[in-house]
Amino acid sequence: MPLVGILTGGGDCPGLNAVIRAAVRRVANDGWDSVGVVDGWKGLLTGDTMELTVDNTIDIIARGGTILGTSRTNPYKRPEDVEKLLETYTALGLDGLIAIGGDDTLGVADKLVKDHALNIVGVPKTIDNDLSCTDFTFGFDTAVNIATESIDRIVTTARSHHRCLVVECMGRHAGWIAGYVGMASGADITLVPEKPIDMDRVIAVLKRNRQQGRNYNVVVVSEGAVFQAGDYVTSYEGEVDEFGNVRLGGVANRVAELIEKHTGYETRSVVLGHLQRGGVPTAFDRVLATRLGYAAAELVLKGDFGKMVALRGNEIVAADLSEAVGETKTLDMDLFAIAEAFFTVD
Amino acid sequence: MPLVGILTGGGDCPGLNAVIRAAVRRVANDGWDSVGVVDGWKGLLTGDTMELTVDNTIDIIARGGTILGTSRTNPYKRPEDVEKLLETYTALGLDGLIAIGGDDTLGVADKLVKDHALNIVGVPKTIDNDLSCTDFTFGFDTAVNIATESIDRIVTTARSHHRCLVVECMGRHAGWIAGYVGMASGADITLVPEKPIDMDRVIAVLKRNRQQGRNYNVVVVSEGAVFQAGDYVTSYEGEVDEFGNVRLGGVANRVAELIEKHTGYETRSVVLGHLQRGGVPTAFDRVLATRLGYAAAELVLKGDFGKMVALRGNEIVAADLSEAVGETKTLDMDLFAIAEAFFTVD
Amino acid sequence: MPLVGILTGGGDCPGLNAVIRAAVRRVANDGWDSVGVVDGWKGLLTGDTMELTVDNTIDIIARGGTILGTSRTNPYKRPEDVEKLLETYTALGLDGLIAIGGDDTLGVADKLVKDHALNIVGVPKTIDNDLSCTDFTFGFDTAVNIATESIDRIVTTARSHHRCLVVECMGRHAGWIAGYVGMASGADITLVPEKPIDMDRVIAVLKRNRQQGRNYNVVVVSEGAVFQAGDYVTSYEGEVDEFGNVRLGGVANRVAELIEKHTGYETRSVVLGHLQRGGVPTAFDRVLATRLGYAAAELVLKGDFGKMVALRGNEIVAADLSEAVGETKTLDMDLFAIAEAFFTVD
Amino acid sequence: MPLVGILTGGGDCPGLNAVIRAAVRRVANDGWDSVGVVDGWKGLLTGDTMELTVDNTIDIIARGGTILGTSRTNPYKRPEDVEKLLETYTALGLDGLIAIGGDDTLGVADKLVKDHALNIVGVPKTIDNDLSCTDFTFGFDTAVNIATESIDRIVTTARSHHRCLVVECMGRHAGWIAGYVGMASGADITLVPEKPIDMDRVIAVLKRNRQQGRNYNVVVVSEGAVFQAGDYVTSYEGEVDEFGNVRLGGVANRVAELIEKHTGYETRSVVLGHLQRGGVPTAFDRVLATRLGYAAAELVLKGDFGKMVALRGNEIVAADLSEAVGETKTLDMDLFAIAEAFFTVD
Repeated sequence: MPLVGILTGGGDCPGLNAVIRAAVRRVANDGWDSVGVVDGWKGLLTGDTMELTVDNTIDIIARGGTILGTSRTNPYKRPEDVEKLLETYTALGLDGLIAIGGDDTLGVADKLVKDHALNIVGVPKTIDNDLSCTDFTFGFDTAVNIATESIDRIVTTARSHHRCLVVECMGRHAGWIAGYVGMASGADITLVPEKPIDMDRVIAVLKRNRQQGRNYNVVVVSEGAVFQAGDYVTSYEGEVDEFGNVRLGGVANRVAELIEKHTGYETRSVVLGHLQRGGVPTAFDRVLATRLGYAAAELVLKGDFGKMVALRGNEIVAADLSEAVGETKTLDMDLFAIAEAFFTVD
Repeated sequence: MPLVGILTGGGDCPGLNAVIRAAVRRVANDGWDSVGVVDGWKGLLTGDTMELTVDNTIDIIARGGTILGTSRTNPYKRPEDVEKLLETYTALGLDGLIAIGGDDTLGVADKLVKDHALNIVGVPKTIDNDLSCTDFTFGFDTAVNIATESIDRIVTTARSHHRCLVVECMGRHAGWIAGYVGMASGADITLVPEKPIDMDRVIAVLKRNRQQGRNYNVVVVSEGAVFQAGDYVTSYEGEVDEFGNVRLGGVANRVAELIEKHTGYETRSVVLGHLQRGGVPTAFDRVLATRLGYAAAELVLKGDFGKMVALRGNEIVAADLSEAVGETKTLDMDLFAIAEAFFTVD
Repeated sequence: MPLVGILTGGGDCPGLNAVIRAAVRRVANDGWDSVGVVDGWKGLLTGDTMELTVDNTIDIIARGGTILGTSRTNPYKRPEDVEKLLETYTALGLDGLIAIGGDDTLGVADKLVKDHALNIVGVPKTIDNDLSCTDFTFGFDTAVNIATESIDRIVTTARSHHRCLVVECMGRHAGWIAGYVGMASGADITLVPEKPIDMDRVIAVLKRNRQQGRNYNVVVVSEGAVFQAGDYVTSYEGEVDEFGNVRLGGVANRVAELIEKHTGYETRSVVLGHLQRGGVPTAFDRVLATRLGYAAAELVLKGDFGKMVALRGNEIVAADLSEAVGETKTLDMDLFAIAEAFFTVD
Repeated sequence: MPLVGILTGGGDCPGLNAVIRAAVRRVANDGWDSVGVVDGWKGLLTGDTMELTVDNTIDIIARGGTILGTSRTNPYKRPEDVEKLLETYTALGLDGLIAIGGDDTLGVADKLVKDHALNIVGVPKTIDNDLSCTDFTFGFDTAVNIATESIDRIVTTARSHHRCLVVECMGRHAGWIAGYVGMASGADITLVPEKPIDMDRVIAVLKRNRQQGRNYNVVVVSEGAVFQAGDYVTSYEGEVDEFGNVRLGGVANRVAELIEKHTGYETRSVVLGHLQRGGVPTAFDRVLATRLGYAAAELVLKGDFGKMVALRGNEIVAADLSEAVGETKTLDMDLFAIAEAFFTVD
């Protein structure tokens, strides 16, 4: 029977197992076998694999992470690794390979197709939702829900103590998670990488909201948000980017310090961190991941390699694998404008 | 200051409070006051209202149900009620009215605009996601997640006891909830109103899956699914529809009986019922509801009445209020085909 | 190396896997191996077993149900089955056996110890918390939390529609689950098997609470609650018990009908059913189950057979296995009196 | 009608609102009114109060935090504040006062009873479960469950990436939360203030567990855990306590660094922080809080002041208010020994 390999690379996120399960089932319907390549591209160097059957993937749809393990191994860092990879690929007798990962993982896939005509189909993955090749990525909805539920919890303490709480969400380069979380949790203000932090405005909004009757505040901030250089944060404090903005480690902590100092409100910061990327995926992510895994399997069955699957509108489409390595897709500013409108102060 | 009334009609669902909150805040930004009309159209007969301010709606985004109360009162059932409604509308000094509801509520709104030129803007609502005027309705994502999480729980018992579990989801006329839940929970088979139940196929799929190694089964069924008339369910047992299919009360229970009888697997049924429509909305529903409330408020501020807001793709658009009363939007069968493919037996 | 068998019998409940995991680890520390007997006593008839190692039980603490499978097979129903069981026990080379189950499972264990001197240690299990041999059973806390969270959800709909909701919890013979759930969810009134349902009082309490300002109601009822025979429910309608009370199938449904009829409040019933016994155990249940599994393993290691482990106060103690088959432990009426006090009407 | 004041002081925790609700209902049954004193003892300086009725407390049982607000204000810091407090107490016409708080809040209550014969009854509160006057405090079970569920999530990432995760829980002086969470989440090792951290042992346990097949690790650590001074952490790095152990800010972070350095396992730390103390209380905490609020109200009704209510075994008893200010109750080391046994390496 023909054999498809499946691997997951880069940071894990909820939904990976649903992709794997759907692909295994779909190819099994056409009489193909599947084999799991362990720890991303690394498994194609070491030959480390695991059995994948309809039976042993039946229950994994609700499980977070990836049963295949993952790594950030990039075989193109050493020429001998690419050789090794090709040998393993041949030795395993693969008729196709589904690579699930972000721009790094799919960038390798694209090269392997172009340089060595491997039979690869890609599935795009990033919890940050910042891949321009697809409208939404699985894992994002779960991250947004976990962060929102966490803020629901934290808010009760903020309210009881009349505190300001600054919550740091994932998002190094794009404000998708913070933007959705800020709107869903009814934050006073949301700070994203797309818009440098203007502390004067932050402080004015918080004060206005206290005057309107709210006796606590919630500020949501992306880990990648930067400060306008100025009186609050000088360019000496951190790394200055091309636009003259200042990037600091621990942005939530610094925002909290500045708020407490300039408003007098007791302020605390919380970094949600790894909590956002783990655990049971939401129904939305399970459905999206299932559709992508299914579509990737169909491309393999058709022998349509060098492609990736992507969500466009509500359709799953096949795109060129090279599209995976594109520009960062930043937060939809039309959507963010709604949040912004709530933050406006005269 | 100008005044907008807000009311919620029909069955409650998660996200209603997020719509209310967003509308109140958006009009407040332009100097308008808001007033809550209690219990849908009924409140415009009784004059029963409640205060709505930025302050008293600050915390409601995460709360299920509707702080305004709701009812199924239809003023067009009695001519004198329409008169009364117009009097109350005038007495309250409303400059605009946001009506949030399903086709009944918005059908009344449409008539009131056409017959009496009231300044109404509609927001479509149904937990079943079966309104053709909008791509997705808020509350649907929450219902799907609650049902999926419930099945995650129930599955552990099914597996321990090697049982078949039949889970009944909401959806009288369309299989949206069951379709998504079935895919997200990895059900053996999903039964929806769009496709009459073929018990031969159900039994064949369950047996095939047991042979493949699964020692338990999950069947997801819409409350509105109907049976093919035949050996399993005769046309004498229930109500026969125009296509000769049989509709029974307690569909999950009947499916469970038939499965146990014809497979010998111990089978139980669970009706999720009201659990699916209550409680804290998901982040997706909070964001969608906030966007709709915001957009409805903007229509009011622009004086653009007789319209409703709707989601098309990822955009919120303004549509004619009469569109709310359209055909039932049935489940996307392209999406369902993925689930179907998993169910196929030779 | 010496070998201990582990089996789970009767209805599944959250925490079983935590017992198994703790026992496997504890005996491994002393150099013993473990083997899983599949599907309770049935596995000792069929010889069906599964490997149990520290490694393959590392991750099961958070998983609901039992990885060993379960059944209600009782070998004492047929004399030849006891013979078969003894043969399998010997053939497997068991040096000890940990039986986890309710009074049926442990009753069999007790007989096997007395009649055949098998090396058995018992762990008591019932989700209903009604075993008199132990203060609390694992699974109970999870069931109470699931039911309470479900009511939190359902309440939002009740409030929006000004309805009365009647929620049926598990508890055939004792009101532990309903009693705790009723208190934790702030129910208007709670109905338990220990006290026949007095519909006059139910109706009076609901009306009093509406007068005090609550515009919705929640009634929690055990599946095993019975009616006082009288005007509301006659002795012809169901099975009459020794005290003249009437037991009906679908108690929640009947209570709901009577409330709607006699108060005029729109009333709905919800049967939580299997939802309560599945899924991820609470931390309390994981800790209790771990302590019990650990203590059972220590009894095996000491060769102290014919015993069961039990919670007394906050201590885990060893008791005689025969204690497992005792009277039903009914709900603590001192605790219930607090709830009762809230229900009092003059 | 007689009037009881209710106040909440110190850090908030889940269950405070359930205490308030139960007390208000219980005194109302005997014809007493209630009034909320805002922000703990501060409200008795400012006279800031809020209405408390059966009606406006009906829905608060499931809400985290305290509707009364809280503060750490101690009137004994300034003599004129005590005077002011006595004036407000009289001006409000209080016949009794229920003070809910930790040793600070109840220490003030005790002095006010002794020095000024105020009619105070106390309810002990600490999320850390370290008050010696009571067996368990409400909020603790919720904190343990939140932390356990968070680790369930985080573990999926640890497993996918073969990482070691170090999770910091609350507990400055006692290891109750970490001890329970470590056991409930199946941690490799748990580090508590009661036992200085022995890094040699930590490393040995992690390595042993990897050898046994686990390809990831979880370490749970109390925020108040200290290091044995030695090769890993020198006495120069932090504050040295009376036993020569070293206390550092950011204990989880330091443990993670040391593990990564000495094992080579990729290691990350997560600080759960405020997440643990917020949000919806568990059923256990709602029941315990309801029982305490009820019992406190009964003491007020009986005029039995200068007392506090406490849980002893499964009973609620009345104790002397002075008992609230006792020694820290440290983690039950018999219970911890079970966890320890799992950690043992030869």
